[in-house]
Amino acid sequence: MPNSFGKLFTITTWGESHGPAVGVVIDGCPPGLPLAAGEIQAELDRRRPGQSDIVTPRKEEDRVEILAGLFEGRTTGAPISMMVRNTDQRPRAYDDMREKFRPSHADFTYQEKFGVRDHRGGGRSSARETIGRVAGGAVAKKILAAAAVETRAFVTQVHDIVAPASALGNFPTLAEVDATAVRCPHPATAAAMIERIKAVRSEGDSVGGVIECRVRGLPAGLGEPVFDRLEADLAKAMLSLPATKGFEIGSGFSGARLKGSEHNDAFVSRDGRVRTATNRSGGVQGGISNGEELVFRVAFKPTATILQPQKTVDIHGTETELVARGRHDPCVLPRAVPIVEAMTALVLVDHWLRHSAQNRTFKF
Amino acid sequence: MPNSFGKLFTITTWGESHGPAVGVVIDGCPPGLPLAAGEIQAELDRRRPGQSDIVTPRKEEDRVEILAGLFEGRTTGAPISMMVRNTDQRPRAYDDMREKFRPSHADFTYQEKFGVRDHRGGGRSSARETIGRVAGGAVAKKILAAAAVETRAFVTQVHDIVAPASALGNFPTLAEVDATAVRCPHPATAAAMIERIKAVRSEGDSVGGVIECRVRGLPAGLGEPVFDRLEADLAKAMLSLPATKGFEIGSGFSGARLKGSEHNDAFVSRDGRVRTATNRSGGVQGGISNGEELVFRVAFKPTATILQPQKTVDIHGTETELVARGRHDPCVLPRAVPIVEAMTALVLVDHWLRHSAQNRTFKF
Amino acid sequence: MPNSFGKLFTITTWGESHGPAVGVVIDGCPPGLPLAAGEIQAELDRRRPGQSDIVTPRKEEDRVEILAGLFEGRTTGAPISMMVRNTDQRPRAYDDMREKFRPSHADFTYQEKFGVRDHRGGGRSSARETIGRVAGGAVAKKILAAAAVETRAFVTQVHDIVAPASALGNFPTLAEVDATAVRCPHPATAAAMIERIKAVRSEGDSVGGVIECRVRGLPAGLGEPVFDRLEADLAKAMLSLPATKGFEIGSGFSGARLKGSEHNDAFVSRDGRVRTATNRSGGVQGGISNGEELVFRVAFKPTATILQPQKTVDIHGTETELVARGRHDPCVLPRAVPIVEAMTALVLVDHWLRHSAQNRTFKF
Amino acid sequence: MPNSFGKLFTITTWGESHGPAVGVVIDGCPPGLPLAAGEIQAELDRRRPGQSDIVTPRKEEDRVEILAGLFEGRTTGAPISMMVRNTDQRPRAYDDMREKFRPSHADFTYQEKFGVRDHRGGGRSSARETIGRVAGGAVAKKILAAAAVETRAFVTQVHDIVAPASALGNFPTLAEVDATAVRCPHPATAAAMIERIKAVRSEGDSVGGVIECRVRGLPAGLGEPVFDRLEADLAKAMLSLPATKGFEIGSGFSGARLKGSEHNDAFVSRDGRVRTATNRSGGVQGGISNGEELVFRVAFKPTATILQPQKTVDIHGTETELVARGRHDPCVLPRAVPIVEAMTALVLVDHWLRHSAQNRTFKF
Repeated sequence: MPNSFGKLFTITTWGESHGPAVGVVIDGCPPGLPLAAGEIQAELDRRRPGQSDIVTPRKEEDRVEILAGLFEGRTTGAPISMMVRNTDQRPRAYDDMREKFRPSHADFTYQEKFGVRDHRGGGRSSARETIGRVAGGAVAKKILAAAAVETRAFVTQVHDIVAPASALGNFPTLAEVDATAVRCPHPATAAAMIERIKAVRSEGDSVGGVIECRVRGLPAGLGEPVFDRLEADLAKAMLSLPATKGFEIGSGFSGARLKGSEHNDAFVSRDGRVRTATNRSGGVQGGISNGEELVFRVAFKPTATILQPQKTVDIHGTETELVARGRHDPCVLPRAVPIVEAMTALVLVDHWLRHSAQNRTFKF
Repeated sequence: MPNSFGKLFTITTWGESHGPAVGVVIDGCPPGLPLAAGEIQAELDRRRPGQSDIVTPRKEEDRVEILAGLFEGRTTGAPISMMVRNTDQRPRAYDDMREKFRPSHADFTYQEKFGVRDHRGGGRSSARETIGRVAGGAVAKKILAAAAVETRAFVTQVHDIVAPASALGNFPTLAEVDATAVRCPHPATAAAMIERIKAVRSEGDSVGGVIECRVRGLPAGLGEPVFDRLEADLAKAMLSLPATKGFEIGSGFSGARLKGSEHNDAFVSRDGRVRTATNRSGGVQGGISNGEELVFRVAFKPTATILQPQKTVDIHGTETELVARGRHDPCVLPRAVPIVEAMTALVLVDHWLRHSAQNRTFKF
Repeated sequence: MPNSFGKLFTITTWGESHGPAVGVVIDGCPPGLPLAAGEIQAELDRRRPGQSDIVTPRKEEDRVEILAGLFEGRTTGAPISMMVRNTDQRPRAYDDMREKFRPSHADFTYQEKFGVRDHRGGGRSSARETIGRVAGGAVAKKILAAAAVETRAFVTQVHDIVAPASALGNFPTLAEVDATAVRCPHPATAAAMIERIKAVRSEGDSVGGVIECRVRGLPAGLGEPVFDRLEADLAKAMLSLPATKGFEIGSGFSGARLKGSEHNDAFVSRDGRVRTATNRSGGVQGGISNGEELVFRVAFKPTATILQPQKTVDIHGTETELVARGRHDPCVLPRAVPIVEAMTALVLVDHWLRHSAQNRTFKF
Repeated sequence: MPNSFGKLFTITTWGESHGPAVGVVIDGCPPGLPLAAGEIQAELDRRRPGQSDIVTPRKEEDRVEILAGLFEGRTTGAPISMMVRNTDQRPRAYDDMREKFRPSHADFTYQEKFGVRDHRGGGRSSARETIGRVAGGAVAKKILAAAAVETRAFVTQVHDIVAPASALGNFPTLAEVDATAVRCPHPATAAAMIERIKAVRSEGDSVGGVIECRVRGLPAGLGEPVFDRLEADLAKAMLSLPATKGFEIGSGFSGARLKGSEHNDAFVSRDGRVRTATNRSGGVQGGISNGEELVFRVAFKPTATILQPQKTVDIHGTETELVARGRHDPCVLPRAVPIVEAMTALVLVDHWLRHSAQNRTFKF
């Protein structure tokens, strides 16, 4: 099921950017969770186009409708089906692309794979597919919240503007993250990032960056020793997002430059619990959460759609030039923040159920 | 099945470092593939301890026995079962660790998860688990070879010694990679890496590094648009390996510093095929292979086991000091090269079968 | 994913009888299949309430809406999402049951499992859930039709009225099956069945029966040797339907009374192909289709909802009497015929893709 | 993974009858379960050839070796790997069959599917494959026993000899079942069955029959509402066994002849629990266990291998006659009893873990 994610807490997303609707089915949700459409909507609003002056001005309202899985305001254990109708479709905007492959887009590879060319836009590769992820992740976040687990993603880099590490020492609040349109909790850096995004937009260009995500309150024991390591499933979750090119946890690529004596996290005893003095592991050891803060980062490439002329090839194999039109994000990171949180929450709830099944069901 | 990997071409690994044996079951292998134990053994020998003077001197012979799945030298479509007996077990070496958690190891988190403490060694977190992966990957590589697809991993960084990008322009041959004990195909860099590894070993310390992997000959069309993107499954595969902390494909983290106009891979027409002028995508667009070379990198932390005294806590919660013993790799990268190749091949064969099933079975 | 069925061609159904809608997501559909809503609708109309005077008179129109997965009248390889809005909800009809467990219904076990009591009706156990299966099966049937495979289910028994075996010697046409409201292709038996159904309905009672399903045109080679035998997956598919109590393939339970010399299907050579002289195997040997007609039967119990007073217990544990109301089928079999066909087609397409993946992708 | 069974508690079996060994990997076993090889062996001895004078006289000792997953006599949560070496291989016995398809065997369909002909014997279709199931099931039975759940299968019919229903009213003890070689707990019927089996064997023929399985102590709540109904997964488990042709639960096929007023199980209040007065449901309602005894039956065809001459076709398509040799069971049922129990236990533990994961992990 290539459009499903998770083993026990599973989402299946469906829908294309230019079809009637997009949606998600959540399977395996624990029963009894209080849930209201407004809670889903709040998360969707964080990824919605048009929310600020540095994202795409498309006017999608993205109203969620819950079609199944609730009774008297609580989940029943049955599948939760949610749908968002597509409204702002402007197929005209894509006419020039009817026969030209867009550089670093998915249309060439989709045609190679499926033998079908939907020239109207991204189809399943559209960022609209992530609506289903965010809606599903909103339910997962609610479950985590009930267990006092908090997930917080934020932008740490846009182009070559990097938030100072010292500024990110504490776990940022949601308010701090959402205080600026760019979702970097360090105000001075955020201002520079916004300026940069506006500058590249005015050139018809785009920029990428890095999102960091942290989770606190997670118990030790989540994850599996071998293939389904917690960091492996997080890496898959993040690299499954459009425009991502890299993932690192804890010390990440910079950890490759340390010696073992510098990298190891010494164990200490604190408040009657085994803790680590440092957290280069990023909250995971041997594939399993160790009770420390989960910390990882995701690299995003610059948006592929730019308004400058680009060399390309058309479906007849002829070299040509493409001048893209349409309303696109000059930088996807601000809207990707809630998506990173959603995927993180989905991984964590899934592993929590898996852990509980094997290790908490029977006592011998 | 937390000990299985793959959807159609699946491996299930089993066994602990201090148990009687380790092994793997391959399920879903196409029938008719010529296969001999010697071909599996050749790959196992590349990850074997004691193969050079910069890896652990443990004397494991790692003889593979094929227990099922072959008839008259060819696969039958039935599960292929392979086993390697453990021989060089020295539980004595671990006596000091019987009650002390090893920093940045898996023993604390395993105990938190399973409630069991196997003090004898790594158990499933041991690098011996990867024997099953390499044996399974050897079969996958054979399938790819029959389709003229080549997978080549090699070391590009050890500690702060980095092979010059210019030196890696061509697809290195296996002979070039295996020419030095450190498996970096740039001889001058390899010499420096080996010197560094010996230096840190003499200090009782360890180092990490980076492995790059490239695949050539891959057809366009492998991968899935949404969750099971080729890069997502590769990221999961790599982060499922012990000691890995990061993954990046194509431009990776450095791509976050480029503008769209710099990052996009222009399409060109070459030899009647649609190709890209550059390869910042790393061979994957929209989650699907585009026919260019697949290029990704994996970050490894320094080996957690070092021979210097370390602060830790024992199972009673008392802070103490651990002085590790045993014979460990001061740097895991040389032996990790065949493991990275194995996991890559497993991902690719699995996606090849999936792609073929959906898109090549029926004609309408 | 308890609400999903199939490994490569997968359906996920969602929705409750008294919620806003029911639906299905098909994942893994081959691209390029011509598909129109009318084709789905035709199958739904065969399972629709109110279609004859021997089924429930509820007035559900069951209009299908295709929300995703098509482009210019063909499947794209993306998930196909289909939805049917619920219209004829009469929660009032169920008021008496608010606190009483309905005998041989699912409400007691659902409450034990999920801790939730949705008194409004069947919830996920409602026959409305099968709308998604029929819609998904309609796509599978279309794929099979393109490969010249035909699936035909029909009623062979209602209560103790059994169609004579001699009357079912040929593969019935769809017209023959749908000629009568009870969907038994033997007219004299059909008339008696209809009379019996009307008689028990007038008593406020219900009856069960048996459906036979045959498939012709199926190639040899579908199915798996061990757990996923074709008959095993068909058995699961059928026992997953509401009200089913038994499954048998080929000789079935009566085969237990034969000797091997009577039961074995001798191989013969016919038209240059290996065929069997008889078909007690039911088209499957060693779990794999042998190219003969697939033949199996499914037993259905009488509808649990009857209009006679019944002893039961309420949610407080007090013994009481229940007098059910509502509009129910006195016999589910006529409407179950298209559902049996749908599940059969889903199993076959899934196995076809699986077979092709492992055995037709690579040539060595 | 066609050679795996179960979603959370999973077995993967491997090995052919004429290869070096057969085995099983259990994945997802809860940690802490006390387990000894002798307990596995005891179950294997119940399915072993040569155990009585009515089963095949082959002299396979079937010694199990536990290769992984235990530490100090308890499961660790890691995969449990078990192996049995094949010893009594007599390939000579099969020489006549080198080129002839055996009627109602798997060799024709395997060749059609995989393109490979292993003439030496059953390969994966051999009953030896069930050794892995029995070994895996032994672990599952041990888990159930710790929760006071008992699984008991027994023979109720051989050929046309049927144990009287009245004789099976109570839950038979293991001793009663194993008291006779035929494993029918009604002594008079057992004697007649044994006589019949010896009679057909002397004719070079074979017989089939029916096995009933009951489970007591099962809590309400196991199973899923839609596709993964408990009876659906049991049906799949049973139809995945060699030689099975039918499955029915509770009233089964005879339930099709009852009216709803006769079939429904009235709820009653007993000892403070909601119980049913009768058990035509067979312990499952709406796909979920209701706390009553689980009761189902499985039909087995007569053994396909008989020693009388049979018409068949050879691999060149020429019609010919086959005279089978070898040592085969004239009736598979006595040895199938522990296999039915094993598959039942596997289904139940798997569903128990699934139920617990979704419904017992989080409290809201």
